[in-house]
Amino acid sequence: MSNHKITGVFSAATTPLNADGSPDLGLFTEHCQRLLSEGCHGVALLGTTGEANSFSLAERRTILEAALKAGVPAENLLPGTGVAAIPETIELTNHALSLGVTKVVMLPPFYYKGVSDDGLFNAYFQILNRVNDSRLRVILYHIPQVSGIAISIPLIGRLIDAFPETVVGIKESAGDFNNMQAIISAHPGFSVLCGADPLLLPLLKAGGAGCITATSNLVASSLRTVYDNVFDATRAAQVDKAQERINAYRTVSNSYAQIPAIKAMVGLKTGDSAWKRTRPPLVALNDAEYAALSENYAQLP
Amino acid sequence: MSNHKITGVFSAATTPLNADGSPDLGLFTEHCQRLLSEGCHGVALLGTTGEANSFSLAERRTILEAALKAGVPAENLLPGTGVAAIPETIELTNHALSLGVTKVVMLPPFYYKGVSDDGLFNAYFQILNRVNDSRLRVILYHIPQVSGIAISIPLIGRLIDAFPETVVGIKESAGDFNNMQAIISAHPGFSVLCGADPLLLPLLKAGGAGCITATSNLVASSLRTVYDNVFDATRAAQVDKAQERINAYRTVSNSYAQIPAIKAMVGLKTGDSAWKRTRPPLVALNDAEYAALSENYAQLP
Repeated sequence: MSNHKITGVFSAATTPLNADGSPDLGLFTEHCQRLLSEGCHGVALLGTTGEANSFSLAERRTILEAALKAGVPAENLLPGTGVAAIPETIELTNHALSLGVTKVVMLPPFYYKGVSDDGLFNAYFQILNRVNDSRLRVILYHIPQVSGIAISIPLIGRLIDAFPETVVGIKESAGDFNNMQAIISAHPGFSVLCGADPLLLPLLKAGGAGCITATSNLVASSLRTVYDNVFDATRAAQVDKAQERINAYRTVSNSYAQIPAIKAMVGLKTGDSAWKRTRPPLVALNDAEYAALSENYAQLP
Repeated sequence: MSNHKITGVFSAATTPLNADGSPDLGLFTEHCQRLLSEGCHGVALLGTTGEANSFSLAERRTILEAALKAGVPAENLLPGTGVAAIPETIELTNHALSLGVTKVVMLPPFYYKGVSDDGLFNAYFQILNRVNDSRLRVILYHIPQVSGIAISIPLIGRLIDAFPETVVGIKESAGDFNNMQAIISAHPGFSVLCGADPLLLPLLKAGGAGCITATSNLVASSLRTVYDNVFDATRAAQVDKAQERINAYRTVSNSYAQIPAIKAMVGLKTGDSAWKRTRPPLVALNDAEYAALSENYAQLP
């Protein structure tokens, strides 16, 4: 894994809300610090799990600034900066860079569907050409089931050719292990990070770089155990046990609407039910769901 | 149709670009004025055909302001104001209202897919509750093949109940005539506007309110002929001829990538090839496509 420019366990951090729907910056930065102390190499804030696209550009900037102000090191933050409009993706990326945050996860423009690789290449080309900062490291974001936009292997190749120092990895959130293997095989050294926790172990064995997952909001230490010991045969039992724990949490969260459930479970873990809130169009768990989730949660290892 | 709060032929106006990709405000306002002079009741700028979600909020505000400054009456403008983040939809809607533009076409938040009617209701509720301006008239925007989000008939009913003076219509761009009829039947007086030109005639006969279409960028006068004469049996021949002309243009534009083709055809109509440009992720027609389109165009009635 040593040839990867980005490697590790990253948390697709959720964003807690105040009662008025604004981001709860205090609770959020506390969460970032907890994730790092539990073993995450970094916090991939403002992604899909973080409800980034439900926040205004101003709110997104404020959330990133709050994490830095609270002392989270810039090198441990990987904000999402890709939105539907190229000028705003440029704005968010430049904002991150202006704060010393050089690693970003970048969705392609996601309003139009069925767009061509040429169109997506042109979009990323304009963005990276205009940002034009040699410090920048971009993780492409492939989550077609939400964004509606797939990032193909040939497109990745064109982007690596055009920006070899900048386009360094992909978050593969389709959960398609064959696709992950094909990307690794087509583009050696390009960092493939999975979005699905159960795939971390096989992905690392296949030459992948790590993960950016939602369940890490709850079980970061177990993900770190897997990451650190995957190639140590003497610790296979610990790795298997950690993987079982991760899978158990994931099974529970995925029995409900996933993002609201992850948020509610962070609340159960930390004892602060403010975590239950979501911003529309997501809907918080109702009382019956929350009661059932709480029972499930109490059984988890 | 007299009980409709919004009725007529509205153009889903395309947005021309300068060579640097910025909106060409002069060409755009000229286009708005031409559309009105050709018979459009209004210009539904900054929709899907207008590449709205590829522009920043600042660019969207500038485009609307430019149309007003050029003398396009506020009452003839129906900008799209719905984006992924609720605070920004509020901001764009308030901006329009601040300029005296009271009719808007509003997409639901479109990043997350598979969201519930509850979540969409909560989103629209927060937006309309916070805007809270009795002048506002909202046309909901149903274009699931692009936005990924359907607006169901029960959801429409809940929104009408909550905001009876404000939520007055829907742009049905799925092209599903059964759905249009079902909406009219479920919600009498609620204005159904189709996004597909061939449906204008049957929709008006079925009690619909009009259309917001892309082909109107090219054949607004023919759409107006259909609209004005649909219930006059003595002018059935003129109506049929107008509808045939509309369909012919639509058939040509839909033989290519639709939005780039519509833009190129506006360029062929007006003699300004600057119209060919699109913003990524859309891709302008290539030379061969443009040559073929030009030949097709020359044959059109």
